[in-house]
Amino acid sequence: MLVKAYAAPSATEPLVPVTIERRAVGPKDVLIEIAYAGVCHSDIHTVRGEWGGITYPQVVGHEIVGVVTEVGSEVTLHAVGDRVGVGCMVNSCRECKNCLAGMENYCLNGNTQTYTSVDRDGTITQGGYSSHIVVVEDFVLKVPESIPYEAAAPLLCAGITTYSPLAHWNAGPGKNVAVIGLGGLGHMAVKIAHAMGAEVTVLSQSLRKKDDGLAMGADHYYATSDPATFAELANSFDLIVNTVSADLDLASYLRLLTLDGTLVNVGAPPEPLPIQVFTLFNNRRSFAGSSIGSIAETQQMLDFCAEKGIAPEVEVISAEAINEAYERVLASDVRYRFVIDIATLA
Amino acid sequence: MLVKAYAAPSATEPLVPVTIERRAVGPKDVLIEIAYAGVCHSDIHTVRGEWGGITYPQVVGHEIVGVVTEVGSEVTLHAVGDRVGVGCMVNSCRECKNCLAGMENYCLNGNTQTYTSVDRDGTITQGGYSSHIVVVEDFVLKVPESIPYEAAAPLLCAGITTYSPLAHWNAGPGKNVAVIGLGGLGHMAVKIAHAMGAEVTVLSQSLRKKDDGLAMGADHYYATSDPATFAELANSFDLIVNTVSADLDLASYLRLLTLDGTLVNVGAPPEPLPIQVFTLFNNRRSFAGSSIGSIAETQQMLDFCAEKGIAPEVEVISAEAINEAYERVLASDVRYRFVIDIATLA
Repeated sequence: MLVKAYAAPSATEPLVPVTIERRAVGPKDVLIEIAYAGVCHSDIHTVRGEWGGITYPQVVGHEIVGVVTEVGSEVTLHAVGDRVGVGCMVNSCRECKNCLAGMENYCLNGNTQTYTSVDRDGTITQGGYSSHIVVVEDFVLKVPESIPYEAAAPLLCAGITTYSPLAHWNAGPGKNVAVIGLGGLGHMAVKIAHAMGAEVTVLSQSLRKKDDGLAMGADHYYATSDPATFAELANSFDLIVNTVSADLDLASYLRLLTLDGTLVNVGAPPEPLPIQVFTLFNNRRSFAGSSIGSIAETQQMLDFCAEKGIAPEVEVISAEAINEAYERVLASDVRYRFVIDIATLA
Repeated sequence: MLVKAYAAPSATEPLVPVTIERRAVGPKDVLIEIAYAGVCHSDIHTVRGEWGGITYPQVVGHEIVGVVTEVGSEVTLHAVGDRVGVGCMVNSCRECKNCLAGMENYCLNGNTQTYTSVDRDGTITQGGYSSHIVVVEDFVLKVPESIPYEAAAPLLCAGITTYSPLAHWNAGPGKNVAVIGLGGLGHMAVKIAHAMGAEVTVLSQSLRKKDDGLAMGADHYYATSDPATFAELANSFDLIVNTVSADLDLASYLRLLTLDGTLVNVGAPPEPLPIQVFTLFNNRRSFAGSSIGSIAETQQMLDFCAEKGIAPEVEVISAEAINEAYERVLASDVRYRFVIDIATLA
């Protein structure tokens, strides 16, 4: 099956319209007509080869929503016409202890990511900047009716990537949670943590987006360019979710953790961060990582967002605007997530 | 009150016999005639100025056991003749949220350490390489009758420093625990983790101490000089307690953690350790620090060791052998803790 897509021809060229092959719908597969695809910073890192060499041309996009238009003979979870979503992974080994525990996002053999992974048939997976995708049914999520398609897309990566650590480290009433960075991930972290009942503080470089942050549910908003922030907030937070991929002075942020507090990175700086162990001794602090969420947890997150009426702030763009959108993402000039209207695919 | 002690005259000279002043016994103070004092690697770092400049002469030693010989008029917790111990701290602010929560070891104003701290009267605290010490009653521990004095001493630092993270991170039946380094701290970590019911693996540079480790209760013993160790043990441990202060290749050890595993440092490398966030993403790993334990937890640990029949392996030395003992500690030539017989103080 040949479908339309936007692909990167190389690490240095703009994305261009292409036609790609999708596999035939197998017995357990679902064919999805994609309506919207979110634009994640990871997409840019990937196509530019910043996270390792890849094979070109490559279609990216792992925040995918659409409608089921065909199902395989053994599919039981989804039906034609269903509103569905696909996130960062489309399969996993199903054999390792993490997969058997329902934690496919931590598959020890490496799950099959939505793009750039080697699929079971030996082809390289191609992402959601595309008119259609074929995915095995149990890696397809149900998108609640109350969430508009375009707003649902960023939940599949930005939503689950922040929901999972907030849920795991028990953000909720009585907990003091900080979010570093108010971008695509950060703004979802604020909305979700607030909906969970936590007291939420945004730590942003400047106060430029303060009004937005407070409107999203933040209780406090501080500029990290002001050294007084770090003195005032010392020993305060039970949990800090760091959504920033750039290098930070980690020690300054660790010192903001209270007893038994955890700073969890969901952004991935390419270079190792130096960590002074003495900073962890105080308050028995932890530094952790978290990577998206399991399929079951992703469904929980979608249902939670529907119940709480939470949705990302999105700017819908046409497919041909993708290269300009990448430049704007790199310049932090997006409030707060670009979503491609796939109907505009050339 | 003038008492005998061994002190460092400077960062570069050997320890020498001195006479020091102890404060008069206040209403809430206990006077302890010291029987034994353990020799901790921290003592050496401290007197040599490796953890910052200090005032000389300085008496170190924070693994102190002895008998109560005098109590203040308001003392209710201890009586003359009691077997008691003193560890790494002799007071705290008693006002911060951590102290109010009974976690004096994480006092936000900095607890009063047994040596090198500024005491309330403005003097510098002097440690346990000394015939007597005066300590406020609620920082004095009860040493169970079944633990010999000389074996009790190392419990006050090496014991609690390893017990606390093992207890906090739930070492016990069904948990797979690794201990990095089989020295003063490491050998206690092995004994305690085994007594808690965990499956215990020692990760040591070589297999030189393997027989000892297995006799202490380790189930497995691996040499970290063998790269095969890291392949074989990948994704295995719920908890790794790192007792080594030297720089390690942290990433190699983090990769040994299973889902939601924690590597906790109780050793304090002076230089920052580089940490690659991608390594933490896999298995949602955490890197943490832990610093001794609270007074209540230290008493729990002593009672636990008495109940389980656990004691450190000690080599009793005379006071005049202290400088030689320091060299042997630095050469890892001690099995597994030196303890000074304070009766030999010149």
